[in-house]
Amino acid sequence: MEKIVASIITIGDELLIGQVIDTNSAFISQELNKAGVWVKRRVAVGDSKEEIVRALNEESRDTNIIIMTGGLGPTADDITKPVLAEYFGGKLVVNEDVRKHVVYLFEEVFRRPLIERNLKQAEVPDVCTVLPNARGTAPGMWFEKEGKVFVSLPGVPHEMKGLIINEVLPRLQQTFTMPFISHRTMLTAGVGESFVAEMIKDWEERLPAHLKLAYLPNYGMVRLRITGWSTNSDQLEKELNTEFDKLKILVREWLVTDEDQSLPLALSNLLRSKNKTMSTAESCTGGYIAHLITAYPGASNIYKGSIISYDNEVKIKELKVSPATLQKAGAVSEEVVKEMAAGALAKLNTDYTLAVSGIMGPDGGSPEKPVGTVWVAAGDRNKLITQKFQFRFDRDRNIEMTATQALNLLRKFVVENA
Amino acid sequence: MEKIVASIITIGDELLIGQVIDTNSAFISQELNKAGVWVKRRVAVGDSKEEIVRALNEESRDTNIIIMTGGLGPTADDITKPVLAEYFGGKLVVNEDVRKHVVYLFEEVFRRPLIERNLKQAEVPDVCTVLPNARGTAPGMWFEKEGKVFVSLPGVPHEMKGLIINEVLPRLQQTFTMPFISHRTMLTAGVGESFVAEMIKDWEERLPAHLKLAYLPNYGMVRLRITGWSTNSDQLEKELNTEFDKLKILVREWLVTDEDQSLPLALSNLLRSKNKTMSTAESCTGGYIAHLITAYPGASNIYKGSIISYDNEVKIKELKVSPATLQKAGAVSEEVVKEMAAGALAKLNTDYTLAVSGIMGPDGGSPEKPVGTVWVAAGDRNKLITQKFQFRFDRDRNIEMTATQALNLLRKFVVENA
Repeated sequence: MEKIVASIITIGDELLIGQVIDTNSAFISQELNKAGVWVKRRVAVGDSKEEIVRALNEESRDTNIIIMTGGLGPTADDITKPVLAEYFGGKLVVNEDVRKHVVYLFEEVFRRPLIERNLKQAEVPDVCTVLPNARGTAPGMWFEKEGKVFVSLPGVPHEMKGLIINEVLPRLQQTFTMPFISHRTMLTAGVGESFVAEMIKDWEERLPAHLKLAYLPNYGMVRLRITGWSTNSDQLEKELNTEFDKLKILVREWLVTDEDQSLPLALSNLLRSKNKTMSTAESCTGGYIAHLITAYPGASNIYKGSIISYDNEVKIKELKVSPATLQKAGAVSEEVVKEMAAGALAKLNTDYTLAVSGIMGPDGGSPEKPVGTVWVAAGDRNKLITQKFQFRFDRDRNIEMTATQALNLLRKFVVENA
Repeated sequence: MEKIVASIITIGDELLIGQVIDTNSAFISQELNKAGVWVKRRVAVGDSKEEIVRALNEESRDTNIIIMTGGLGPTADDITKPVLAEYFGGKLVVNEDVRKHVVYLFEEVFRRPLIERNLKQAEVPDVCTVLPNARGTAPGMWFEKEGKVFVSLPGVPHEMKGLIINEVLPRLQQTFTMPFISHRTMLTAGVGESFVAEMIKDWEERLPAHLKLAYLPNYGMVRLRITGWSTNSDQLEKELNTEFDKLKILVREWLVTDEDQSLPLALSNLLRSKNKTMSTAESCTGGYIAHLITAYPGASNIYKGSIISYDNEVKIKELKVSPATLQKAGAVSEEVVKEMAAGALAKLNTDYTLAVSGIMGPDGGSPEKPVGTVWVAAGDRNKLITQKFQFRFDRDRNIEMTATQALNLLRKFVVENA
């Protein structure tokens, strides 16, 4: 069986001046991969006819599927639709179903006045199949040319997602016979990419050619992913399981989870399995740890709340940190995070808690406590463990690193003290 | 003067299976634009020699500058360096400065054992200029070929950023005479993209050809950006200011800020200018609003803290929400967010506060309060205003929309009640 290969084209000047980050391509890539389609390239081009046509020509040269997003809005800078009409040899006509849907959305859902410009969303090239967009006004469009499929989708993420799941994937599965691609992913923490690579070198060298290992380092963690391609899915799954088990043993000391899940979700699932709850007492991370946990559905089962004590006054009044401790040891100290953790356990009445205090930068550092100094405490009513971290550089990264390391400290505590 | 045009190539299989989101391209695009370089295309390709070479050939066809990131790690899947050595007709040699830097980083900064594999980072093609990477082991590499510049940078975001700012931009400014590109950006809230477009149609049609307007919709807000190109920077700035002022008048009713800044930063700066403080009482957003505010340096001047009351018990105990109110009106109600706001003002002792409670989904909805129902309260000790929102669809988007609308409600309150 032949590999089915895709390319993704994102359209919009905003991508080229960097005013928005392209999250659509990652989502589309994930979904295509899961369906057995190999994404070969991704290209971003501006709202320019010449550039869109060049991308369509180049990206369709050695692929089967071309997915485009963006440039379908109702404003003057959105030119994708007329360009596609011309490229596929059609003309723009009003689609009656889309027109009704646009009227419905404005009258019943948005409850905003409908203007002529919005009705232009109902115009589509007469050479495409319309893919209904339940979540917005711009429909998806499906073209076929010389055995290749071209799909154009709106750039608004949740609209694009709905169309990919409900319309594009089912149609692709009908159009192509997909080969089988499968992944196994685990998450490690506490060692660098090179060190992991060294530990597993012999195993990696002996992997069969249709299995491939990737290292995905991120904020002090390394995700390891084995990908396999085959026409025989049963055999591939068996091989993947065998190699994955071998790899798990090799990195067991650093293993966070053997599922393709984030650290916050791994911790949440661990707590859920033990029917336990947690809280946080955050200073320097300012609610980011709470956000990482509550981003997942069902967080209310395991997460009760947080006292964000950005100000020392809040540490004293709400978390009952002693002013003497703050005076003596400073807000960024082992003593203070221990008192914060004790305060959070008492106040928020949870089984476990996590407290962090640090200097995220760029200002606020001193020779004794430079920017990037962080103290974390994790534990329960019987025991608190603490760890000091020395991060570096920029504020965003320090917030990410602190959240990651704090969540991992609590995860380890729960595993070892349950 | 000729336009200087660039293309960005990001290298790594992880981009093509969607396991990481490419934030590097947005940063590089922003910085190049500010420096007067027009980014024409962005391409992502896998860790494959054939694909890297194809991208180098295609992307250099009608550009002056090609910036690559990724594929420079010490593991087997990172092949960029040998491919570049071959492409530019050189061979890999150990660079003594880089070797010393790698040893220094492991011994003094990371404090991890240095293994042979790490020293491979010191190998570079003998046909490049090495760009020192103060923040990591993989150096940047600068190649010149037929009047074009090719730069290869590590994919780790903070390492890439340091290299762009400290090494790449100064060298590009020495190499090319840049044309002048300038932007003016404002943020509007409360109206859709089409409605804004309709309001400003006549003005937009009369814009001179070298000025271009872009609409950047995001979570209920629309950013409007005018971009101009010219060789005469004084005249361009004058023209941009004139058109920007006209546009501001046209959208004055919906204007959030006339600077290129996010809503959280606009609110923070507003509070800072009035020497006022704020707090938050978050239920459904679980710390995300606090995070958006504290992501900016200097947040401690205006932000004191938050009670994240994910659990009703925390609403009652910490925010003094009355159990009777919770019983009667439910956690997602005008009454409860008003009591949460009052509780936060009393507890956290700030000038202003913001309270949110809602159903983010996918579960927890009911016919009376479907998923996406959100109540927000904002105000000070004298007055609280409230607003109900009905969002839809997915949890991530509901959290973003709630945070955005809540921050804007407080911003409007501060503007109108200062």
